[in-house]
Amino acid sequence: MPPTTEQACFEAGIKFGSLYHQFAGTPVSPDSTRSLETAMAEAIENQPFCESVAVAIDDDRVADAIDHDNGYTELTGSLMTVEMRIAYEGVTARTRMEMEDGYPLMKLVAVAEAGE
Amino acid sequence: MPPTTEQACFEAGIKFGSLYHQFAGTPVSPDSTRSLETAMAEAIENQPFCESVAVAIDDDRVADAIDHDNGYTELTGSLMTVEMRIAYEGVTARTRMEMEDGYPLMKLVAVAEAGE
Amino acid sequence: MPPTTEQACFEAGIKFGSLYHQFAGTPVSPDSTRSLETAMAEAIENQPFCESVAVAIDDDRVADAIDHDNGYTELTGSLMTVEMRIAYEGVTARTRMEMEDGYPLMKLVAVAEAGE
Amino acid sequence: MPPTTEQACFEAGIKFGSLYHQFAGTPVSPDSTRSLETAMAEAIENQPFCESVAVAIDDDRVADAIDHDNGYTELTGSLMTVEMRIAYEGVTARTRMEMEDGYPLMKLVAVAEAGE
Repeated sequence: MPPTTEQACFEAGIKFGSLYHQFAGTPVSPDSTRSLETAMAEAIENQPFCESVAVAIDDDRVADAIDHDNGYTELTGSLMTVEMRIAYEGVTARTRMEMEDGYPLMKLVAVAEAGE
Repeated sequence: MPPTTEQACFEAGIKFGSLYHQFAGTPVSPDSTRSLETAMAEAIENQPFCESVAVAIDDDRVADAIDHDNGYTELTGSLMTVEMRIAYEGVTARTRMEMEDGYPLMKLVAVAEAGE
Repeated sequence: MPPTTEQACFEAGIKFGSLYHQFAGTPVSPDSTRSLETAMAEAIENQPFCESVAVAIDDDRVADAIDHDNGYTELTGSLMTVEMRIAYEGVTARTRMEMEDGYPLMKLVAVAEAGE
Repeated sequence: MPPTTEQACFEAGIKFGSLYHQFAGTPVSPDSTRSLETAMAEAIENQPFCESVAVAIDDDRVADAIDHDNGYTELTGSLMTVEMRIAYEGVTARTRMEMEDGYPLMKLVAVAEAGE
C-alpha cells in the first residue's frame, strides 16, 4: 500500500477534480458569485479528509467573459482561484488552482507530516 | 414558429433540466443545504426569461440519505423541492419539482398570458 | 392543467437543459468526439418521451478551441449542434441547438399534434 | 516543491474526481452502458498524464437500480468499476474505484518509479 503522504496527495487531487467538474458550466454573473463561492466550498468540505476550501470567483473576469446580452457566462477555471487543505492521517496537503500562462493550473503546493 | 405559450414552456423546461443536471451529484450534508439552495437559485436565475427560482433541500431527507460514516450524500431530486417562474414575452409559466409516488417529478403547473 | 402541446414543449426543454448541463465541461479532443456524441444521445434518449437525439460535435471547432499544449478543451455549446424529437401523448416537438450570431441557441423548431 | 511521486498521486486523484463528478447523474439504462463507458474513458484520457482509463458499468446493477417505470436510472459510483493508470515524469500511479462494504471507494493501488 502506498505511503500516507502519497495517499494524502491522491485525496487532494480527488477534491480538486470533484470541485471543478461538479461546478464548471454553472451559469454565473457578478450578482451570483458570492453564493456560488460559498456553496462550492461548503459542498467539497463535506468530502472526507477535506479540512478547508476557499473559492474566489473574480467579478471582473466574470463581467469580461459576458460578451453577449444574456447577462451571464458559464463558470470555468479561468474565472476563479481555489485553495484547499487536505488532512489525511497526520499528513497535510495544500493545493491551489490559479492562472499560469493564461491557463488555469491545479497545483500541489506543499505536503507536510505532523511534527514537521 | 410555435406560439409564445409553447416557447415559454420550452424555456421553462430548459431551466429545470439545467438546474437538475448541473447540481445533481453535489456533495451535501445538513450543514451545507442552505448555501447550496441559494447558489442553485441564483445560478439559474441568471438564465434568460427566468424570473424566480426557489430551492428547498430537505434536511431530514439529507440526514436519512447519509447511510455511511462519511457524513455526506450526493444531491438527487428526491432530496429537494424546486419552484420556478419563467416569463417569456408576456407569458408566465410556473413549474415545480416534488416527490410523487416516491419519485421526483418535474411539473408544468400553470401557464398564463398577461391580462389573463 | 396546461394543454398537451405545452406539456410536450416543457418536456422538450427539460431534455435540452439536461443534455447541456450534464455534459458541458467534458474534456474533448478530435479523438474523442464520436464516442461523446454517441453517449450523449443514448443517455438523453433514456429520458421519458425522448424519441431521438442527434449530437454532432464539430471536429474543426474542437481543434480550434485547443489553444494550449494540453491537447484538449472542454465541451461547450459552441462546439456542437443538437437535434431532438420529443413525443408526448400524441404531440411531437422538434428542437435544435445551433450557433446564431456567434452564440449557441436552443430553439423550439416545430410542434405538431398527431394527424396534423 | 513536492516530490514527483506525490505529484503523480495528486494528478491521479484529479482524474478520479473529474470522471466521477462529470458523469455522475447521467441517465443510464442497460441499453446505453457501453457507449457511456467508452465516452467516459476517452474523455478522461484527454487529460494530461492520463495514460489509460477503463470503465465497466454493471448492467445487472443498473437494471436493479431502475425501480420506476421510467426505464432508466442515474449513474452513481455504486454502478461501476473504474481503473486508471497515470504516468507523470517517470512515475506510474494506478488507481481503482470499486465497491467496498457497500460503498464505492476510490483507491490508490500502486505507485512505481520507472526502473523499479
